[in-house]
Amino acid sequence: MVFEENNINSIIHFAALKAVGESVEKPLEYYKNNLVGALVVFELMKELNVNNFVFSSSATVYGKPEYCPIKEDFPLWTTNPYGATKLMIEDVMSDLSKANNNLNLAILRYFNPIGAHISGIIGEELNGTPNNLMPYITKVAVGQLKELSVFGNDYDTPDGIGVRNYIHVVDLVKGHLAALKKLEEKHGLVTYNLGTGKGYSVLDLVSSFEKANNIEIPYKIVERRPGDIDMCYADPTKVYKELGWKAEFDIERMCEDSWRWQSNNPKGYEENNELLGMITYEI
Amino acid sequence: MVFEENNINSIIHFAALKAVGESVEKPLEYYKNNLVGALVVFELMKELNVNNFVFSSSATVYGKPEYCPIKEDFPLWTTNPYGATKLMIEDVMSDLSKANNNLNLAILRYFNPIGAHISGIIGEELNGTPNNLMPYITKVAVGQLKELSVFGNDYDTPDGIGVRNYIHVVDLVKGHLAALKKLEEKHGLVTYNLGTGKGYSVLDLVSSFEKANNIEIPYKIVERRPGDIDMCYADPTKVYKELGWKAEFDIERMCEDSWRWQSNNPKGYEENNELLGMITYEI
Repeated sequence: MVFEENNINSIIHFAALKAVGESVEKPLEYYKNNLVGALVVFELMKELNVNNFVFSSSATVYGKPEYCPIKEDFPLWTTNPYGATKLMIEDVMSDLSKANNNLNLAILRYFNPIGAHISGIIGEELNGTPNNLMPYITKVAVGQLKELSVFGNDYDTPDGIGVRNYIHVVDLVKGHLAALKKLEEKHGLVTYNLGTGKGYSVLDLVSSFEKANNIEIPYKIVERRPGDIDMCYADPTKVYKELGWKAEFDIERMCEDSWRWQSNNPKGYEENNELLGMITYEI
Repeated sequence: MVFEENNINSIIHFAALKAVGESVEKPLEYYKNNLVGALVVFELMKELNVNNFVFSSSATVYGKPEYCPIKEDFPLWTTNPYGATKLMIEDVMSDLSKANNNLNLAILRYFNPIGAHISGIIGEELNGTPNNLMPYITKVAVGQLKELSVFGNDYDTPDGIGVRNYIHVVDLVKGHLAALKKLEEKHGLVTYNLGTGKGYSVLDLVSSFEKANNIEIPYKIVERRPGDIDMCYADPTKVYKELGWKAEFDIERMCEDSWRWQSNNPKGYEENNELLGMITYEI
């Protein structure tokens, strides 16, 4: 097996289902896949004496935060099974850390990752109608969807539209490398927000996309979605202070890279699957 | 398999590890055994179309309650991995219930079960030093342990000693039968405390035991245990109102039956294993 054939001393655990709506409809799938999957990894780590572990958590563990920006010590609760799996795994990590001083664990709470690698050949593969905003925008831009629906314009935000904290996926990756390095200092369990700290409304993102790529994105305002909140953006002070990491790419760059990926690969990896396994990229 | 050979339409899930201290030392064992075990049962229920499920939860999901008696709608949180597995399974049940209207689920939050079947041949098998009070008392009574340690006498209770809500295990069993019956009315998810509603301090229990069985239990007061709380007892109003169930056996009867089991079976089931599989008891 992979652990026997390689000298592995750190694990980054990305593997999980991640669609909120789907998790409400199929909770057992989410608990089985996300939670049991993580427990199996923890079990293997014990068996094989691997002590360094970085976990992909999510801003969803802050539930509906009372205010922004969100700090890591805000109250934690969740509003759907997807979020529950993230918070449960965080809780398990906390208990594992208390029971075993040798473990070096990092929880990274992602805000809203968008963008793609600048090469335009590594990006998010999409199946069916996108659940997230940027893939929806790029599908409209590429002509596969007619128009964007913006859910609600009566939120308590500057333009009435929900505000989120988008982060370039390559910045996110760099955050993981910084966390891996931090684990070597052996602090037990550490927890960081990975976000830019800047909130943008859905319409801010649309107009940034239009400007960056010179493409018009037709949209319509529709009713609020149940469960959506006014604002969600990170306070990234702690992660900068402790890891020296901060997001570098701005919203225009996120939009450019998202579009390069989508326009080069309207069918996702279908056309360049083979290539992908052979290349290593500088990030 | 058992589901194919029998016409099973309801499941009572008792199988779990239950020692708080052990769970702090071996959290992964607890998450694997308790949580994954329950998820496997849920998966099987789905596969085999079994919709009725009763879960052994615990008063531990109330964390350190602000006051007593404890109602079912008190805030839920936990202080150790054992408790976390109980609360996580409750959360999974809640999500399953929302996703599938056919499921009939009952969460039963046990307070402190003691006692044994009146026959004296069904009781709690003990391995090693007991983690719970009554088994400790009976081990002292039977001469296997020297004296009882009472943890702290400066709690905010009438005698300064921690107060708990003991319930006779046969009453607890009857609560499960009442819950099974309730599931037939198809209410989705229901949650009940199973407790008597009467709080007794550790020393109340000791003196009840001494009186009921005419045996002296030597004890000493020692330091508080970390994490222990002043009082914990149930408000059993809801379960009586909705299920018509209430605990019938008093503290003396609990003490008599606990002692009958222990004195008849100082080595637990070792001596009557064979018998046990063959008999059915009226409770």
